[in-house]
Amino acid sequence: MSLNRPLRAGMVGGGPGAFIGEVHRRALRVDGLATLVAGAFSSDPDKSKRHAATLGVERAYGTFEEMAEAEAAREDGIDVVCIVTPNHVHAPAALAFLERGIHVICDKPMTTTLEDAEALVRAVHDSGLVFALTHNYTGYPMVKQARAMVQGGELGEVRKVVAEYSQGWLSTPVEREGNKQAAWRTDPKLAGAGAIGDIGCHAENLAAYVTGLHLTRICADVRSVVEGRPIDDDASMLLRFDNGAAGVLHCSQIAAGLENGLSLEVFGEKGSLIWHQEDPNELRFLPREGQERVYRRGHDDLAPAARHATRLPPGHPEAFNEAFANVYSNALRTIAARLAGQEPDPLDLDFPTVEDGARGVHFILTALESGEKEAWVDASYEPPARDAG
Amino acid sequence: MSLNRPLRAGMVGGGPGAFIGEVHRRALRVDGLATLVAGAFSSDPDKSKRHAATLGVERAYGTFEEMAEAEAAREDGIDVVCIVTPNHVHAPAALAFLERGIHVICDKPMTTTLEDAEALVRAVHDSGLVFALTHNYTGYPMVKQARAMVQGGELGEVRKVVAEYSQGWLSTPVEREGNKQAAWRTDPKLAGAGAIGDIGCHAENLAAYVTGLHLTRICADVRSVVEGRPIDDDASMLLRFDNGAAGVLHCSQIAAGLENGLSLEVFGEKGSLIWHQEDPNELRFLPREGQERVYRRGHDDLAPAARHATRLPPGHPEAFNEAFANVYSNALRTIAARLAGQEPDPLDLDFPTVEDGARGVHFILTALESGEKEAWVDASYEPPARDAG
Amino acid sequence: MSLNRPLRAGMVGGGPGAFIGEVHRRALRVDGLATLVAGAFSSDPDKSKRHAATLGVERAYGTFEEMAEAEAAREDGIDVVCIVTPNHVHAPAALAFLERGIHVICDKPMTTTLEDAEALVRAVHDSGLVFALTHNYTGYPMVKQARAMVQGGELGEVRKVVAEYSQGWLSTPVEREGNKQAAWRTDPKLAGAGAIGDIGCHAENLAAYVTGLHLTRICADVRSVVEGRPIDDDASMLLRFDNGAAGVLHCSQIAAGLENGLSLEVFGEKGSLIWHQEDPNELRFLPREGQERVYRRGHDDLAPAARHATRLPPGHPEAFNEAFANVYSNALRTIAARLAGQEPDPLDLDFPTVEDGARGVHFILTALESGEKEAWVDASYEPPARDAG
Amino acid sequence: MSLNRPLRAGMVGGGPGAFIGEVHRRALRVDGLATLVAGAFSSDPDKSKRHAATLGVERAYGTFEEMAEAEAAREDGIDVVCIVTPNHVHAPAALAFLERGIHVICDKPMTTTLEDAEALVRAVHDSGLVFALTHNYTGYPMVKQARAMVQGGELGEVRKVVAEYSQGWLSTPVEREGNKQAAWRTDPKLAGAGAIGDIGCHAENLAAYVTGLHLTRICADVRSVVEGRPIDDDASMLLRFDNGAAGVLHCSQIAAGLENGLSLEVFGEKGSLIWHQEDPNELRFLPREGQERVYRRGHDDLAPAARHATRLPPGHPEAFNEAFANVYSNALRTIAARLAGQEPDPLDLDFPTVEDGARGVHFILTALESGEKEAWVDASYEPPARDAG
Repeated sequence: MSLNRPLRAGMVGGGPGAFIGEVHRRALRVDGLATLVAGAFSSDPDKSKRHAATLGVERAYGTFEEMAEAEAAREDGIDVVCIVTPNHVHAPAALAFLERGIHVICDKPMTTTLEDAEALVRAVHDSGLVFALTHNYTGYPMVKQARAMVQGGELGEVRKVVAEYSQGWLSTPVEREGNKQAAWRTDPKLAGAGAIGDIGCHAENLAAYVTGLHLTRICADVRSVVEGRPIDDDASMLLRFDNGAAGVLHCSQIAAGLENGLSLEVFGEKGSLIWHQEDPNELRFLPREGQERVYRRGHDDLAPAARHATRLPPGHPEAFNEAFANVYSNALRTIAARLAGQEPDPLDLDFPTVEDGARGVHFILTALESGEKEAWVDASYEPPARDAG
Repeated sequence: MSLNRPLRAGMVGGGPGAFIGEVHRRALRVDGLATLVAGAFSSDPDKSKRHAATLGVERAYGTFEEMAEAEAAREDGIDVVCIVTPNHVHAPAALAFLERGIHVICDKPMTTTLEDAEALVRAVHDSGLVFALTHNYTGYPMVKQARAMVQGGELGEVRKVVAEYSQGWLSTPVEREGNKQAAWRTDPKLAGAGAIGDIGCHAENLAAYVTGLHLTRICADVRSVVEGRPIDDDASMLLRFDNGAAGVLHCSQIAAGLENGLSLEVFGEKGSLIWHQEDPNELRFLPREGQERVYRRGHDDLAPAARHATRLPPGHPEAFNEAFANVYSNALRTIAARLAGQEPDPLDLDFPTVEDGARGVHFILTALESGEKEAWVDASYEPPARDAG
Repeated sequence: MSLNRPLRAGMVGGGPGAFIGEVHRRALRVDGLATLVAGAFSSDPDKSKRHAATLGVERAYGTFEEMAEAEAAREDGIDVVCIVTPNHVHAPAALAFLERGIHVICDKPMTTTLEDAEALVRAVHDSGLVFALTHNYTGYPMVKQARAMVQGGELGEVRKVVAEYSQGWLSTPVEREGNKQAAWRTDPKLAGAGAIGDIGCHAENLAAYVTGLHLTRICADVRSVVEGRPIDDDASMLLRFDNGAAGVLHCSQIAAGLENGLSLEVFGEKGSLIWHQEDPNELRFLPREGQERVYRRGHDDLAPAARHATRLPPGHPEAFNEAFANVYSNALRTIAARLAGQEPDPLDLDFPTVEDGARGVHFILTALESGEKEAWVDASYEPPARDAG
Repeated sequence: MSLNRPLRAGMVGGGPGAFIGEVHRRALRVDGLATLVAGAFSSDPDKSKRHAATLGVERAYGTFEEMAEAEAAREDGIDVVCIVTPNHVHAPAALAFLERGIHVICDKPMTTTLEDAEALVRAVHDSGLVFALTHNYTGYPMVKQARAMVQGGELGEVRKVVAEYSQGWLSTPVEREGNKQAAWRTDPKLAGAGAIGDIGCHAENLAAYVTGLHLTRICADVRSVVEGRPIDDDASMLLRFDNGAAGVLHCSQIAAGLENGLSLEVFGEKGSLIWHQEDPNELRFLPREGQERVYRRGHDDLAPAARHATRLPPGHPEAFNEAFANVYSNALRTIAARLAGQEPDPLDLDFPTVEDGARGVHFILTALESGEKEAWVDASYEPPARDAG
């Protein structure tokens, strides 16, 4: 990287008590590629300023509009903005920065409507800027290894995909007991969707990333299990993919006692892969004939994308923070290359894109529609094409 | 038990090369409760006789009809028959023995049609005999512990059930390459259904046994993945239960590399249970608050049904054979009590019944119907009542 | 096998409440190779008779001498005796039957003195009879696979062996609270040694079986942790083997909360093996280069000895009972071949021998000596040679 | 923390290709508590300068003496130095900075001689500065939980401790094939000791940290397994602790195929704990009575020290980097408090000290002595007392 300085980053959202804000900041810091210099941490300007002070961040703003304008006007303005607000703010905030030539890293789900999602796709195409979506679970090295093994034909044709994402933290109405994380995530206006939007879309993205397949049909059973909750907190669905493979995807926030139970099984003609997020350094490969192989992070014989996403030797486990940072660092190195007028390293281009985000939004809305209709629905979708931008 | 002798058992099916026949015979032997003295091991009388000789079995027959008649006529005729044929023979064979006052232990799925299943229910009711169905996976002590914990309210209301049964042995058309096990299991006339009948019904029975819930609706995606196979080899379904809980059940025989991957997750209001058949001595309980507990076979603080199903102390693992034998031994002790004119021990009555078998057949047929219609279908069912017999 | 009948077996010990007696009887039954027809279950003849009745065993005796004499005199006397008494009775009982031409299956440790052990070795050599020692843990298929992999050179030279056997059942003085199993096992006169004799010798046998190596030196730390216990209940030792490899062997009966934690690690030049008894269907192979392979019971590509020791396909777990039965069934088939005047199948000869038993006794006594001296001691030993008999 | 700025840090060692240097830098960065502003990355000043440039570090030096002098003279000189050189440099470098009033974070083992270690203890006492040793494995939250449980009496008296640290990366003479990490670690002059110094001392520190026990006796078997290697690469030892407990500690760098296999078992009167570094988010607690509990990182009911060491909620795994950072961040916050003239938060004082370092060096040397003598040796040791400074 020949941009001879760390990138200057700003943040929208991530105020006091916001779990995910600190996750993003840690991802910014861990590889030393960027410095957080500005933030609109809260819509209350004083609160934003106070939070900036505790973080050692120089410039605080009350709104993202103000921040976008001010930073774009500075010689030393931010290179990249990290958007970590509730979902309904993602689109307007991202557009505000893209329009002013500032690269964007945005939390998922990308938007709450397909219109917003497609507007964002077009804005990214028009601007030529980098847009990265923090589907952080695809940042794990062993997920990248899985993808490489599917691409390399080691499984043969994929025949079935099973993705589970079970959590228990919304088993009771904590949103009515002062839990801020729960409050906005269970408010349809702020979140758009519940379990499907918060975690189901991670599972969908994980399945798509590993298999390279896209959805054609969905039949979903969508529920609000906790009484009085106005949004889905549990969903199960049958899937079909564009190569004819079938799938099962189920996500829950009311699986009492489960922590962050995301797992993926890919059954292919010649063998199968199994991966669990809570044990992320291992990838099980079960060939049709012969004995299981357990692929572990850090080995020299892993795929280039998996090795590129690794900081430590085998047996020195890496985990959630590093996977999250992998999305960031790939995006930041790509941005730095662009700013330096260079071609990005192809290995750095491995991060979720605005198109992935649009697919995710379409998936969420289609699953909700199927749940409402209690029937199979068409789920095929192509985001706006780049040349159509 | 005061019947002062081991029971005399006969077998229908289980000829040379039949994997499941030897499993049943081992279950007969392991606790020393019965002796195999007669068999119609093959429809070829000579073959049957030769097989009987290798097994040290005295009396061999060419057909179950012949055997039922001859044994019923003997003073020292069999007390119980074990039916381990392809599925389509279960009903006629069971009826032949029930009609002659001989108790029955029968492999699953119980029958290939609902008519046969209901006829069998009525025949059992009419005869007053013991009928046990070898849904062997519910014979595992930790499955019994799970059931006891649900019944005892430790999970609160059950909200979601996830049952998976993934195998890979039919990933290729082995039925056309001389594999006898595969040949009849993939022949619709002999098996009735494929993956759903062979393993899906185990998963359904396991879910019902543990939760005590019955199905109300099914939406299934049923497939024949291996080209040219005239029967389902993979199925995934959304379920609804009579308490409003949702479920996911998926089974596959084309999950290349998977062995016998049956697992169950039960998510309740107050906590969740997870069990894997391939690691059967452990049951994970994840309470909504606090730390996971791992229940292990053999501990004194387990439920009575779990302790009753255990032969060895903790750390001395028991597995498939013992679980299978638990169905047998409970049924055999119940039969012995009946023959001795005694009330059976309530702990011995814990084995799958003819009603469970009818529910299983209804489940299989309903899942197939849903798959054909590509829609949710009604799955509620009550087998013929005893007093209606 | 052309002996056209099941073997006739007798048992010494194994009265009411004796855990291990029923384990041996189950091992006799499971493969249908033998029938228990006689027993000296208790030194109280009435008790022995009553126990025989509950087991459906025809002939009961009050002493092993009486039984040996009577059975030897019968036309239909027992072919084989199973000795499951406290340790100090093993030698006299075994000798009594060997002298009368009756094959022996004996529990471990073989004897409480080296003199007894060597007398037994000579008696076996002189008689030409089969003597099998129930080091049951080497009956596990994946232990046999481990041995085959070491023999086949897949690990290269073995460099280090780590064997752990940790239990917690003697964490408190249960021998003074009515626990019969504990009472004789903690009595030096009946047991000879404590933890080292009861479980340490299993660990030693396991290490020797898998690696083919013999001990040359031991440095042991031997303790009686529970106050007032007159025998070792915890021991740790450093080992050296005849190829120069080092070892660690530690066993404990006061590891509170542990169940039956026997495990083995073998570190070789080219890779390592790890096996845990509580998860016996898996064997981990970690090659020096490349990814771990998990070998699982039931696969076609396992070594012949592992396949020979397997009854069920992959994913249908087998466990403690089957491993125990593997010692029995190999020994019984060997005995049957001898009785039929045939050469035994070489695969059946895979069971622990009287020489293994003598090595085990020498190991136990040497470890105790080292513990007393608090120093390294010579541990090399060769049992009496066959031609020297 | 009211020091209103990140700390200024310098580094000695950690030049290009040094794995551990980047680990330390990441630990500095991850919580945003310090900025690396100076470094003596290499004894070649040009190399040091070039490396500084790639890291964005302003001030580069060729020697630690030069750096200590120059930084101490600056108004904006470093607050803390991180020493990540080969072992023999730790003492002189640390002394140089301590003498100039600069706090120290130092890699382990602390020194190669006991004289150096004690000199360092006295220098820390005299200076009143913070000295933290990066025994990073005690930075794991679940290790802190284990310590708290032992301290809280949940295990009762500790009776036995088993620590294993098995790696395979030195299975072949890679030090002669260009592996720099291996080259200095196998050179007695630079490393002092081999496996015992590099990893054995981690295992010793882990055992001491969790149990609070100190060694009284050691009997070690120390080997150089790879031909021609002039230093230990494998060691096994029997231990005794000051409460009478026994221990086993074995470490290896020639366990081919093992990655970073550090594990700890603590057997107490009332229950046992088991922890594996490669699966660090779980701590198994096996009570003497009742079922296992699996404690997991992130739960609210963990001990304060464990919660303090945690950044993410349950199910979002943290791993090696975060554990390493926990040593750093606790030390950095303590340093910041001191610089701000405040009392440090007691929770921040939880990092390995100079006394721990001296104990570690004494352990290493005693183990080597025992190995040479092939005998038990006295291992009791007290580092110089603070008031004796």
